[in-house]
Amino acid sequence: MIYFDNAATTRPDGAAFDKAAQYTRENFFNPSASYGGGFLVHGALEEARSALLSHVADPAKFALYFTSGGTEADNHAVLCGARRGNAVASAGEHAAVERAFNELKNRGVEPRFAPLNRDGSVDTDRLLSLVDGQTSLVSVMHVNNETGAVNDVAAIARAVKKKNPRTLFMSDGVQAYGKLAFRLTDEIDLYTVSAHKIGGLKGTGALIKRKSLALPPFVHGGGQEGGMRSGTENIFGILDFRYAAEKKFASLGADGVRLAEYKKRLASALSARYTVLSSEGSPYILTVSLEGGRGEVLQRMLWDRGVVVGTGSACSSKHRHSRVIAACGYGEKILDGVLRISFSAETTEEEIGRAAVALDEVAREFTDKV
Amino acid sequence: MIYFDNAATTRPDGAAFDKAAQYTRENFFNPSASYGGGFLVHGALEEARSALLSHVADPAKFALYFTSGGTEADNHAVLCGARRGNAVASAGEHAAVERAFNELKNRGVEPRFAPLNRDGSVDTDRLLSLVDGQTSLVSVMHVNNETGAVNDVAAIARAVKKKNPRTLFMSDGVQAYGKLAFRLTDEIDLYTVSAHKIGGLKGTGALIKRKSLALPPFVHGGGQEGGMRSGTENIFGILDFRYAAEKKFASLGADGVRLAEYKKRLASALSARYTVLSSEGSPYILTVSLEGGRGEVLQRMLWDRGVVVGTGSACSSKHRHSRVIAACGYGEKILDGVLRISFSAETTEEEIGRAAVALDEVAREFTDKV
Repeated sequence: MIYFDNAATTRPDGAAFDKAAQYTRENFFNPSASYGGGFLVHGALEEARSALLSHVADPAKFALYFTSGGTEADNHAVLCGARRGNAVASAGEHAAVERAFNELKNRGVEPRFAPLNRDGSVDTDRLLSLVDGQTSLVSVMHVNNETGAVNDVAAIARAVKKKNPRTLFMSDGVQAYGKLAFRLTDEIDLYTVSAHKIGGLKGTGALIKRKSLALPPFVHGGGQEGGMRSGTENIFGILDFRYAAEKKFASLGADGVRLAEYKKRLASALSARYTVLSSEGSPYILTVSLEGGRGEVLQRMLWDRGVVVGTGSACSSKHRHSRVIAACGYGEKILDGVLRISFSAETTEEEIGRAAVALDEVAREFTDKV
Repeated sequence: MIYFDNAATTRPDGAAFDKAAQYTRENFFNPSASYGGGFLVHGALEEARSALLSHVADPAKFALYFTSGGTEADNHAVLCGARRGNAVASAGEHAAVERAFNELKNRGVEPRFAPLNRDGSVDTDRLLSLVDGQTSLVSVMHVNNETGAVNDVAAIARAVKKKNPRTLFMSDGVQAYGKLAFRLTDEIDLYTVSAHKIGGLKGTGALIKRKSLALPPFVHGGGQEGGMRSGTENIFGILDFRYAAEKKFASLGADGVRLAEYKKRLASALSARYTVLSSEGSPYILTVSLEGGRGEVLQRMLWDRGVVVGTGSACSSKHRHSRVIAACGYGEKILDGVLRISFSAETTEEEIGRAAVALDEVAREFTDKV
């Protein structure tokens, strides 16, 4: 099997899994327990927090809170960050941000969406024109999960703060963390990450918050996670996340260079039947469309050939067209035939070659059929 | 090690863990993916949902939604269930419900708390007297996590509905699910459960909802869990929960009878220095107090002897006294010395005997010191 749907989820890292598993055998204690075993688990939890934060931020300025995943972290940032006036997001945001923005209407906050450029990045000028004195939050994702477009969140955050210094700036970093080299800058208030996109497990993520920012809790209870997110911590998922991330960050630079080369090679190897929608952007995502094709049909034909790819975002697979690709300005013919081919650090050159052949075959077969 | 802090967390079931682990190796796909691998994982998810629900409820009348744990499920029920007027809870509720009730104040809903009986069960008459035409939600936990007191939630729910048929009734079932034999009755609208109290993993739980009840989502996004709880599902945690629960429910009746006998035996074997606060109630929890003792000190002395017990709820270990035991009407001398001894289905007779000796030793040592 050639697994090229890594933007949906990745194969969990076996070594990280086995290493974390000791916390389900000997050291399974509740980290809030006030005896030796509890202290031990609590210590491991704090080490994981520190390690996961240090990869992307200065621990003197930022704090990391574990959540049940990227979606919860996004909801926390949006619903607790936007408390008045209006809130501005890019039209390319993941459903976790976009749906939370729509929920803001029920809470007396006006959601505003800024249009996208052709590649899926946000039109920064149009975004800034929506920011005013009443804007409490701006959200721009770091890497678009459907096109791989990279937003320069540091620059956008700076421009937002220049326009309104009281506006909070958040960025969904789910497709960037562990894949792109970056450090959080002072103008970024909130940043969200997920474990299962980089070899961790589904059900674990984190919200990174500028320390000086007071944010209300999203889940109330026993006061875990500094009162920001109550509930007994998912220790196994968190430690697994730590170990999986360590591996990814260790080879992040080299992986990026190699995958950029693979992406380019696959894009050029594809038959002219395919339109490449994302030649730039993250080396982990190549989005193409077979004009007149049907993404879901192509996807299943590829599955039968042992090549696993995505269509739009798996999270929004209920809708016929991708809301985000449509916002890039493409028409129905392109929208119908979108395939998202997404790599991982484990992707090999040989897989690229075999996938190109399979993609060509299904394109020919599909076109012949129609 | 004699582990008697099972109300805080249990040792994860090794067989359930290994069985679920296949979904991190071959079948690691995103359950929302629309190809064979996604369908397979989705099928396993739905089987787990059905199995976990069927243990306690009629699937024709109730639906189960996976959450990141009992705390999130409690927050969902409280914050999305109580939308107007006032909401009534027992003073014995877990912090996940109690803190969420206090958050209701910020959302224009008045929280009301009903006093407890000596054993930690709610005073039903006083609870009902707080319910009026404006009550949108009543919350009474099934088994008290600090005293083991069992509330007759079926009868209380019926009485609440008689007083106001539009009032929603929720019950935190975290210490009951997999331990007590019961079926959800028609008057119970919402019920919350947790995996890690019955051999599952931290970070997985569920909200059980009467099907005919429309409840707003708590986490917004990709529309997973029927739109009730977005975010890629914690497949590993969920399948592990399924397998762990199956084992517990298979021997639930016999375990209960045996542990009731153990609890009785341990209570009578304890030196007269200890006051037993919970001779009745759940067979899984025995709460005692060494008058003039200090729970945390005793707990560490026992830890050094290889006997692991709790004090109050691990979730509220920041406060000196247990809010719940105080609400039972005990004075400072009892409150200071509370130990919660909580069993699991794996608890053996021999452990009971050895724990009795250790408890006696530390009581003597402590009293001699003072």
